[in-house]
Amino acid sequence: MSGITDVAVRAGVSKSTASRALSGAGYVSPDTRERVIAAAAALGYVPSTSAVSLATGRTRNIGVIMPYANRWFFAEVLEGIQSTLLSEGFDLTLYDAKPGTVERARVFDDFLARKRFDGLIAVGLEPVHDELERLVAIGRPIVSVVGKDEETSGVAIDDVRAAQRATEHLIALGHRSIVFLGAGDPHSWAHVDRARLRGYEMSMKDAGLADAIRHVPSEVTLPGGYSSAVNLLSDASRPTGIVAVCDEVAIGAIIAARRLGITVPTALSVVGIDDHEYAEMFSLTTLEQVPREQGARAARLLLDQITHPDLPAVFERLPARLIVRNSTAAIDPTASAITASV
Amino acid sequence: MSGITDVAVRAGVSKSTASRALSGAGYVSPDTRERVIAAAAALGYVPSTSAVSLATGRTRNIGVIMPYANRWFFAEVLEGIQSTLLSEGFDLTLYDAKPGTVERARVFDDFLARKRFDGLIAVGLEPVHDELERLVAIGRPIVSVVGKDEETSGVAIDDVRAAQRATEHLIALGHRSIVFLGAGDPHSWAHVDRARLRGYEMSMKDAGLADAIRHVPSEVTLPGGYSSAVNLLSDASRPTGIVAVCDEVAIGAIIAARRLGITVPTALSVVGIDDHEYAEMFSLTTLEQVPREQGARAARLLLDQITHPDLPAVFERLPARLIVRNSTAAIDPTASAITASV
Repeated sequence: MSGITDVAVRAGVSKSTASRALSGAGYVSPDTRERVIAAAAALGYVPSTSAVSLATGRTRNIGVIMPYANRWFFAEVLEGIQSTLLSEGFDLTLYDAKPGTVERARVFDDFLARKRFDGLIAVGLEPVHDELERLVAIGRPIVSVVGKDEETSGVAIDDVRAAQRATEHLIALGHRSIVFLGAGDPHSWAHVDRARLRGYEMSMKDAGLADAIRHVPSEVTLPGGYSSAVNLLSDASRPTGIVAVCDEVAIGAIIAARRLGITVPTALSVVGIDDHEYAEMFSLTTLEQVPREQGARAARLLLDQITHPDLPAVFERLPARLIVRNSTAAIDPTASAITASV
Repeated sequence: MSGITDVAVRAGVSKSTASRALSGAGYVSPDTRERVIAAAAALGYVPSTSAVSLATGRTRNIGVIMPYANRWFFAEVLEGIQSTLLSEGFDLTLYDAKPGTVERARVFDDFLARKRFDGLIAVGLEPVHDELERLVAIGRPIVSVVGKDEETSGVAIDDVRAAQRATEHLIALGHRSIVFLGAGDPHSWAHVDRARLRGYEMSMKDAGLADAIRHVPSEVTLPGGYSSAVNLLSDASRPTGIVAVCDEVAIGAIIAARRLGITVPTALSVVGIDDHEYAEMFSLTTLEQVPREQGARAARLLLDQITHPDLPAVFERLPARLIVRNSTAAIDPTASAITASV
């Protein structure tokens, strides 16, 4: 295997010049740099990153901390981050931080403290106790996706506004009995869910429907939405409209309705938030967000901050577009909300 | 911030002894080691991993290379790897390698060549051209999950056998017109899909149904299964049974059947492979695999090989259990396969 000495000999420069040229640390003339890179390429030489890191203090690695990698939103954000970092030549180290686990404590105690990254992206992280302070104490740039702290840089949609628009869409179609379906268990009761519930409540109040506000808890997954909706829709007091905390819960509700013989949208309107990959298949009306783009933007913001440490923190609130499909319709005054119309 | 000198002073040892004690490289008496660790903990000292790497040649980092992080199977495998590495104090660096992209070439040319890991786990990687040679040339232990190369260590179910059992299940229920649904486009035509198709074909032949073999291509996703099944089931020649290449395709087929008014399982039996998180909600009969466990096992195998480089390669073929739910039933000779029975 070729070493830095071979590269230096082939390029006709000293070993330290070759090293500077390859690490990017310290001045080397463009011509020399080019010659060294050509020599390294010809010899198949790849510098030891440990040595480069010691010399430059840079790891060319970004840490991503998220509670789940196997849920649609998180997986899409990760894809967006990954592809951006890849094109910029940065590695991505993934830190798993499920709420309330011993492993999460270890991530904060050991893994993050090693500082094996030039910056951090925190996705959907709900910091507890002293976690936020510890993230800041690491002393590396941080960007959040779906973060609640607007003091660090971040990217998110306006969740309150998205839920308001979903609710107003149903109200405009004549619905009065509208349930907010989703969230409520301690494990998934994230601030984004709270923000969406608040948006629903605000729109109901604005329309004079404060007395009709009704929140039905559900696990924030497709099967969770399904089983909560089966109970809700089997009941005589079932609503004519559902604002779901996200598309997975909305789709679960549509599947539940179909199984119970309740026709969507004739007898029941359902609106979600996300534009999940399955939304189109279920003709789901929803507020669109593009988590892949959020991930890509977060990575860009972070790389900018690493290059220019004096940049002020930026929090980007992205718009969520209403996509009307076939899961919502004007209320049919002749259809009973109690008897299923098949 | 405290440095190694402070730790050495506090522990009453030389700087090099403190360094050896913390890096684990070189002999230090147990007593001394304990004293140094206590001193480091008291001072909040975290060793520079670049320096430790230079000293030990170890990164305590594992590379994971996979084509997708946002599909159920891959995301679950990743979770299994992640939790095992976390408990062993290893970092996880994720390398994205979508088939046929420029980014994939860069992963092989630049990222993997940096060797920032003690070992690699390749998940569902279908190496092309010289990729396999290049992986081997990296000179680090490699374990595959769903790999086609049994010469390196790996973990997978027996895909041929799983598809055979799925097909035999339908044949035993009296079905004769059985379609294999899924795969067939160049992007997803993975060897695992080919193995499953082969299993289906073998069982059809064994049952004297060689003339009835019928493969209907579909993208290997839930919406893909849905749209292929809509075409298949709208046709007069629709089958009474479907063996789907995986659960997502199977669930797409069940949703298509429901929309077309074809009752599952009375008029159509559907069997999948996976036991996907949505399988139970759709009462899907399937062959169970547990990708999270496959990921955990792969991580264990790899860590063993890093510790004991002379261990022979091990390929673990895990059993896939048949889970009979309500999407398959004995064929009803009175039900027409042409007219939908709602």
